[in-house]
Amino acid sequence: MSKRKNQFSEKAGLGFGTKNFNKQTRFLNKNGSVNVKRLDGDFLGRIDFYHSLITMKWRNFVLLVLSCYFITNLFFAALYYWAGTEHFGNLAGVDEPQKFIELFFFSAQTLTTVGYGYIYPKSTLVSAIAAVESMTGLLAFAIATGVLYGKFSRPQTHVRYSKHCLISPYENITGFMFRIANTTQNELIETEVKVTLTMNDLKTQERLFLQLPLEIDKIGFMPLSWTIVHPINEDSPIYNFTKQDFINAEAEFIIMFKAINDTYSQNVYSRTSYKANEIIMNAKFKPLKRTQRGNKITIDLRKLNEIEQFND
Amino acid sequence: MSKRKNQFSEKAGLGFGTKNFNKQTRFLNKNGSVNVKRLDGDFLGRIDFYHSLITMKWRNFVLLVLSCYFITNLFFAALYYWAGTEHFGNLAGVDEPQKFIELFFFSAQTLTTVGYGYIYPKSTLVSAIAAVESMTGLLAFAIATGVLYGKFSRPQTHVRYSKHCLISPYENITGFMFRIANTTQNELIETEVKVTLTMNDLKTQERLFLQLPLEIDKIGFMPLSWTIVHPINEDSPIYNFTKQDFINAEAEFIIMFKAINDTYSQNVYSRTSYKANEIIMNAKFKPLKRTQRGNKITIDLRKLNEIEQFND
Amino acid sequence: MSKRKNQFSEKAGLGFGTKNFNKQTRFLNKNGSVNVKRLDGDFLGRIDFYHSLITMKWRNFVLLVLSCYFITNLFFAALYYWAGTEHFGNLAGVDEPQKFIELFFFSAQTLTTVGYGYIYPKSTLVSAIAAVESMTGLLAFAIATGVLYGKFSRPQTHVRYSKHCLISPYENITGFMFRIANTTQNELIETEVKVTLTMNDLKTQERLFLQLPLEIDKIGFMPLSWTIVHPINEDSPIYNFTKQDFINAEAEFIIMFKAINDTYSQNVYSRTSYKANEIIMNAKFKPLKRTQRGNKITIDLRKLNEIEQFND
Amino acid sequence: MSKRKNQFSEKAGLGFGTKNFNKQTRFLNKNGSVNVKRLDGDFLGRIDFYHSLITMKWRNFVLLVLSCYFITNLFFAALYYWAGTEHFGNLAGVDEPQKFIELFFFSAQTLTTVGYGYIYPKSTLVSAIAAVESMTGLLAFAIATGVLYGKFSRPQTHVRYSKHCLISPYENITGFMFRIANTTQNELIETEVKVTLTMNDLKTQERLFLQLPLEIDKIGFMPLSWTIVHPINEDSPIYNFTKQDFINAEAEFIIMFKAINDTYSQNVYSRTSYKANEIIMNAKFKPLKRTQRGNKITIDLRKLNEIEQFND
Repeated sequence: MSKRKNQFSEKAGLGFGTKNFNKQTRFLNKNGSVNVKRLDGDFLGRIDFYHSLITMKWRNFVLLVLSCYFITNLFFAALYYWAGTEHFGNLAGVDEPQKFIELFFFSAQTLTTVGYGYIYPKSTLVSAIAAVESMTGLLAFAIATGVLYGKFSRPQTHVRYSKHCLISPYENITGFMFRIANTTQNELIETEVKVTLTMNDLKTQERLFLQLPLEIDKIGFMPLSWTIVHPINEDSPIYNFTKQDFINAEAEFIIMFKAINDTYSQNVYSRTSYKANEIIMNAKFKPLKRTQRGNKITIDLRKLNEIEQFND
Repeated sequence: MSKRKNQFSEKAGLGFGTKNFNKQTRFLNKNGSVNVKRLDGDFLGRIDFYHSLITMKWRNFVLLVLSCYFITNLFFAALYYWAGTEHFGNLAGVDEPQKFIELFFFSAQTLTTVGYGYIYPKSTLVSAIAAVESMTGLLAFAIATGVLYGKFSRPQTHVRYSKHCLISPYENITGFMFRIANTTQNELIETEVKVTLTMNDLKTQERLFLQLPLEIDKIGFMPLSWTIVHPINEDSPIYNFTKQDFINAEAEFIIMFKAINDTYSQNVYSRTSYKANEIIMNAKFKPLKRTQRGNKITIDLRKLNEIEQFND
Repeated sequence: MSKRKNQFSEKAGLGFGTKNFNKQTRFLNKNGSVNVKRLDGDFLGRIDFYHSLITMKWRNFVLLVLSCYFITNLFFAALYYWAGTEHFGNLAGVDEPQKFIELFFFSAQTLTTVGYGYIYPKSTLVSAIAAVESMTGLLAFAIATGVLYGKFSRPQTHVRYSKHCLISPYENITGFMFRIANTTQNELIETEVKVTLTMNDLKTQERLFLQLPLEIDKIGFMPLSWTIVHPINEDSPIYNFTKQDFINAEAEFIIMFKAINDTYSQNVYSRTSYKANEIIMNAKFKPLKRTQRGNKITIDLRKLNEIEQFND
Repeated sequence: MSKRKNQFSEKAGLGFGTKNFNKQTRFLNKNGSVNVKRLDGDFLGRIDFYHSLITMKWRNFVLLVLSCYFITNLFFAALYYWAGTEHFGNLAGVDEPQKFIELFFFSAQTLTTVGYGYIYPKSTLVSAIAAVESMTGLLAFAIATGVLYGKFSRPQTHVRYSKHCLISPYENITGFMFRIANTTQNELIETEVKVTLTMNDLKTQERLFLQLPLEIDKIGFMPLSWTIVHPINEDSPIYNFTKQDFINAEAEFIIMFKAINDTYSQNVYSRTSYKANEIIMNAKFKPLKRTQRGNKITIDLRKLNEIEQFND
């Protein structure tokens, strides 16, 4: 590790180390997740049920809940059946499978605490099982309440990034730029962006991490779209780079976004990255169409990715 | 975009861009919301049910809950009816509409898990529907619990702003001022205010964003009212402005307020704006009446807007 | 307002304004609450039910819940009775009061969704009332869940302050000091204290607010007690003050405490104040007794207020 | 207290005071908890039920819930039995113990609001007891919901520290170093570490607290492992220390870790300490094995503690 590298890390260290990865490896995926899996002897330490449930897709979550409901009822129905069908009042089934099905629904009525009571437990044993089951139901439901609240109230950013980043003339110099927009109805305030460029130093074969200064890196709030610009002047580490230079250096621009969601007073974070092949040279973003009816301004986010090439 | 504009943006950029809007357009509404609607191809990305429920008025929320309750019962009653009324014990209705009404209330008893059990499901099919319905009820209720907690615990500022802002002599110079008060019983601490003036530069036809320095922009806490003052000295961008100058420049003062709610240890935010026609020249705020009985100071916030004109 | 006053306010403004209050008025009560009541024309804006419930004493909260339970049951029992006792199955009461009592308990069984079903609604009208009541019960219970969670999870500081503050020799100079301790099992980290002195300027008759520099104003965490010291050197605004000087100036030391509760990762805040009559001159705090058994250090917080007078 | 000591405290004060403890005492346990018990006259102030429930092990929590369930049912069964078994419909027990058991399960059905209703209360007295019990059940369950959510959503760091810290050659100088890794699937961002060395000053017999400057003390995020380094140059307070020097001075390195959990947008904190006997001289950490399949990098955290001695 050279002294020089340390200076950069001190400013822009991202915790990835300086060992080169294979070519084509992204540090960050487009959705901001990290390409790292952690192997660990401690099995339980690795599993965080709550985290999994909170971040699970809604469709999978509903399927999971219904499966658990079904399996739990099956389990208690089996217990009741093992205890003996003669301990229940009003079982109408004429054969064993029918009785099992009745016990299955008795279990569902107990677990959800509906308790119609047409079928009812008569003996101590099945009453005790039912008492445990109804308690189980309540606790499971308490957990479900917490998880559902966690799923709903989890801060979500819904920032959309332009598909490409551009390097093109900007005012009197050249700029590296990309565009973001807030796609939710929640206002984002105290919005901040950091751009870190990581690339191979072709001389030392080390991985550099360089924080790029931005024209504006913090805005009060973000009702419309925001074009973030790194001015490529003589101080910039990518001064006079061609697209091929970026590809050779395996450059990746890591974008870190931070804001406060006004509705929930929560900090929200978002990340993405641009690889060298996502750079477009000599183009600019088309302005987003704004229409105004009375006081209301409408902005069309479907054009966020639209660019036009400079003719030169 | 001129260099000069960028310097201002760097300090005061609010994410509105520099394109002029129609006259009469407010950037911020009086209640702090933004006059922007976002069009987006991604339909689901645009809808945030939880956010809508959390910010919905209580009256509408209760109506929504009752409607959903009614419609869900109607749906399950129809399912039970379709399965056949002969699958239920103790249905007393003598004609079909009466039976449907009984099934509707059986559904309500299942959905809320009351489960009197006078009417009860006899066959596998309707037992299964009832098992699904009671589970649906529990999950819907879990969601309602989360949403109600979200509605209650959502940070709310209840800062009241004076209706007008004043420009008038202040100490030896002139000041731009407005007044705010906390109308809740929660103490607000670490209170901060930022004032950004946005107006058209009549020469360049660009929209300027200028953060105005304040006499005091942060106070420890805010038990009484607080008059915020921007001293209009020679450094101020509105030095010697007349009311007509503000109107010509389509000036808007954007107020951003931030504090910590002491009871919940939550950051709270509030915004408002003053347009040129809400400026009153040469007036001062009447002091809020304070009465003191024993140790208790009472302050009358109904006079927050009261001003008196200077005679000169 | 003089220029000089503004300079102090800029550093230490607490939002109390500069008008003098009656003698004997505290700005802050010992428990940190503010002696201000806000009168307001907007009745609803002034009431914040959730805040009241969250901060209510447990004893009162339980009484309130039981009262609401009783009154709601009374209300629905009256509705059922008005609809007619002939609409219920299995009413056993032989006279009207007995029947009303049975309906009261039927209401309780519906509101809590127990629904034994021995007594059950037979007609459409009372079934509809029962459907509304069970829904009401669920929503009320959802609210109770949120309020209980709010009560439990509300950040609480449990910082105890020494009863008196001392002014006495300290190292080579004199110091103003008081002592605080954490009385909970939760660790407090990133602990900060600010001391603001407010007193009358006897010449200008204005209220001054002066932030006092502290020897140490931030510590990493606070497992034991902490003595906060303002060194009274020549720069201090209370250099050479006697106790009578403090009384004449109606001095009040306002203490603002801030920390992070390690268990909940929450910011916690606490405030108190010392009036002139709570100052003790020429005394020091007795060290808190620490005993050590093995690795475990025990500290006795009952001696937090104990001081000893200097003999000189 | 000497002047010199104060200067250090001002930078690194940890609230432990300067009195020496017995030898072998740790300030911080390995898991970051503090070796302090607070004695306090105020009994209730010392007990924080919610805190205990939140931090209790899951196994103990489940046992506690089941015990409370059992005891509450026993209590209400005794009440019902005291009121008289003749007030219940459908009691089938032929002797008193059997009837008590039936009342026990009737209580369970009431507490969980299952309410089969086969056994039902007939008189005013037992109906009233049942109404209180079902309300008790609902409130207890509301509390359980809040506690379960609190347990799940409590920020947890799961940072693993290397078992030993190393002092060994590092680049051209010598470094004090240890290694940490994130063992969860949640990304940690804005990661910060502070290292405070506490040791006895052998001349003055005072306890020193010295914050050690680190090569890098903040990284953007922490996907892999992170080796924290304090460069031991001439400015370092442990320049040229031998292991015996550390033991004589009863040195303890206190590590404070802070980050933001990306999934929950929560600040998370972690602490640990290294005593003199946990220092290894002249060794370095073995690199953690990284394998890469396609884009996915796998890192093996089981080797976090593995070191290799330098041969010299």
